[in-house]
Amino acid sequence: MNFEERKNYLIKQYEELATQKNAVDERWYNGCFERYVNPVITAEHIPLNWRYDFNKETNPFFMERLGVNAAFNSGAIELNGKICLVVRVEGFDRKSFFAVAESDNGIDNFRFRKYPIQIPQTNEEDVNVYDMRLTKHEDGYIYGLFCSERKDPNAAKGDTSSAVAACGIVRTLDLDNWERLADLKTPSPQQRNVVLHPEFINGKYAFYTRPQDGFIEAGSGGGIAWGLSESIEKAEIAEEIIVDEKLYHTVKEVKNGCGATPIKTSEGFLHIAHGVRNTAAGLRYVLYAFLCDLNDPSKVIASPGGYFLAPWGDERIGDVSNVVFSNGVVAKSNGEVFLYYASSDTRLHVATTTVDKLLDWVKHTPADPLFSHKCVAQRIELIKNNEKFCF
Amino acid sequence: MNFEERKNYLIKQYEELATQKNAVDERWYNGCFERYVNPVITAEHIPLNWRYDFNKETNPFFMERLGVNAAFNSGAIELNGKICLVVRVEGFDRKSFFAVAESDNGIDNFRFRKYPIQIPQTNEEDVNVYDMRLTKHEDGYIYGLFCSERKDPNAAKGDTSSAVAACGIVRTLDLDNWERLADLKTPSPQQRNVVLHPEFINGKYAFYTRPQDGFIEAGSGGGIAWGLSESIEKAEIAEEIIVDEKLYHTVKEVKNGCGATPIKTSEGFLHIAHGVRNTAAGLRYVLYAFLCDLNDPSKVIASPGGYFLAPWGDERIGDVSNVVFSNGVVAKSNGEVFLYYASSDTRLHVATTTVDKLLDWVKHTPADPLFSHKCVAQRIELIKNNEKFCF
Repeated sequence: MNFEERKNYLIKQYEELATQKNAVDERWYNGCFERYVNPVITAEHIPLNWRYDFNKETNPFFMERLGVNAAFNSGAIELNGKICLVVRVEGFDRKSFFAVAESDNGIDNFRFRKYPIQIPQTNEEDVNVYDMRLTKHEDGYIYGLFCSERKDPNAAKGDTSSAVAACGIVRTLDLDNWERLADLKTPSPQQRNVVLHPEFINGKYAFYTRPQDGFIEAGSGGGIAWGLSESIEKAEIAEEIIVDEKLYHTVKEVKNGCGATPIKTSEGFLHIAHGVRNTAAGLRYVLYAFLCDLNDPSKVIASPGGYFLAPWGDERIGDVSNVVFSNGVVAKSNGEVFLYYASSDTRLHVATTTVDKLLDWVKHTPADPLFSHKCVAQRIELIKNNEKFCF
Repeated sequence: MNFEERKNYLIKQYEELATQKNAVDERWYNGCFERYVNPVITAEHIPLNWRYDFNKETNPFFMERLGVNAAFNSGAIELNGKICLVVRVEGFDRKSFFAVAESDNGIDNFRFRKYPIQIPQTNEEDVNVYDMRLTKHEDGYIYGLFCSERKDPNAAKGDTSSAVAACGIVRTLDLDNWERLADLKTPSPQQRNVVLHPEFINGKYAFYTRPQDGFIEAGSGGGIAWGLSESIEKAEIAEEIIVDEKLYHTVKEVKNGCGATPIKTSEGFLHIAHGVRNTAAGLRYVLYAFLCDLNDPSKVIASPGGYFLAPWGDERIGDVSNVVFSNGVVAKSNGEVFLYYASSDTRLHVATTTVDKLLDWVKHTPADPLFSHKCVAQRIELIKNNEKFCF
């Protein structure tokens, strides 16, 4: 194929991918959520003109000039009747950035806006940014909280990996124009997975934080925490209290962190968070759920045992295998829920459910009894209760 | 689908899975053992009434209430003409427990007994239990030795992972009623992969142990060890001697441990053990074989080089990828051998062979010469010997 033929062939291929219909994957059933046959966003969904130089003079081989490695962990929000994702896009150079993709139905036909998002810089440049959580706050703004990563200024000579993670904050009304605010200050030296609560608490801004000692290890941080700030422009939390702690021999043994902004339901604020355990083959990330009190969102009122969603089938493999992660959920006013989760730090999927089903899940899945013999007792109770119905 | 339709659909699907015929996988050949097309047990084989609440009133969405994540590392024994597996079943909550599944032919149509096994507790509750080895001992009992895991009481604040591994002991005559004995005491602070030898040695109970310094690391433990105890009710080993040591740049460089109870053959006690090495993507577990002296089972008399069985095809991927593990082998009186091995901590497979083939393997596979140039010499000798036959 010559330049023109190749170009047209790629454009045709791209259009087929971008307009491909998605469908429920019938191989999956658990009564709570549906999985889908195709991911909703992949690296191949990034527009061709963001990757190729279309000028025949400067790119005679029609070569990819700025490759995209992955498109995953996305913030999500409903805006002007569309579902908008703020996608984490990662170049071949390992740096992530954000780009808005929109769809009418939330399950397919996502299209990227004209340009990626340009995040204004603070005095300290971000080396990497990722995992934006979008919160439509009652103050009227849409906030984006993300992880900003910089090299550790105290790294030893020859240590090219040590970094510092902080919570960056931006706000917008349209997802096009973004105002950068000061990074969140907290008692813990590093922060990742910070989520802004959508409502004021006694006139203050409220944050779910994830205090951590070091860049990777949550360490003595203890789990998902909660803190309040007078200001959002110069957000500062004086005290972090633990909301949902990490626990030995559970799905959140090593680390946990909030996912998307919690869903406000009639019975509480519903969280889809992530939990991490260690294995002989590295860390395993799964999603789990919990419910917080409507009047006191720092108080967990339902904590179903085990995971909500784990890597399945092809999701198991990717740049960082054995990982599912979510930082974007949309609950429509009709009760439909779109949960965007990435698999293995590589591509983005949707799972659909409803607020009613999620509430049923968090309220009626038994809590983790923490000991194997108690888990057996729990299961034998289920089996015995079933005896009058079928077996 | 409504509640009834969904229920009937899932039951139909389950029955299709449970009654599916298995067959030798023709893509695999090595002359020593056969692989099979389907795993023999997966999470989907766990009965529906162990996972779903069948009461429409309490489970209107027909939602999975107590999910099962994996079914793997199984002890195995022939009992009343059936092959019985004591399967390690892992809930969504990460806790494992044991359940008996039986089959007439050992390769398909495994059915679980009515309830999972309820392991009686000692004064120290087990947080997690797994990897039971079944030994039909000449004292008349069937013993089950398993790993009991508890949180390390000396873990630092914020350390939610440190644990202590001990060898729990139960016995039974029917796999339904289990008596708990005291945990095994050994000179090493922690134990995993302990196997009870089927015969008395000078009137004493004999154990293959795997001494380890810490919870994950075998450390200075050195390999598979051997020790004797006067009593089984309060089993205590005063001295552990190394039987099969871990070795630099072999399949057992980082760790090794016994698999199932060894098979008694005319030429010795035959072991299928596991060996572990480290990689950039975590630990890699393979199975290897060795033969111990009939009169002194602490003495290795044949030690073929390399692995016996490694992850293959889909076996490579799972919750803990790049792992095969076996703690259950059945040798029938007619010489047929059923080796049950799990892949990637996710599902259970069978491999079939015979005692004659296994003996041929361990006696005639050359020992590991430990140096690349010697491996080349070994291979050139094979090639030259072959010259008069075909090439």
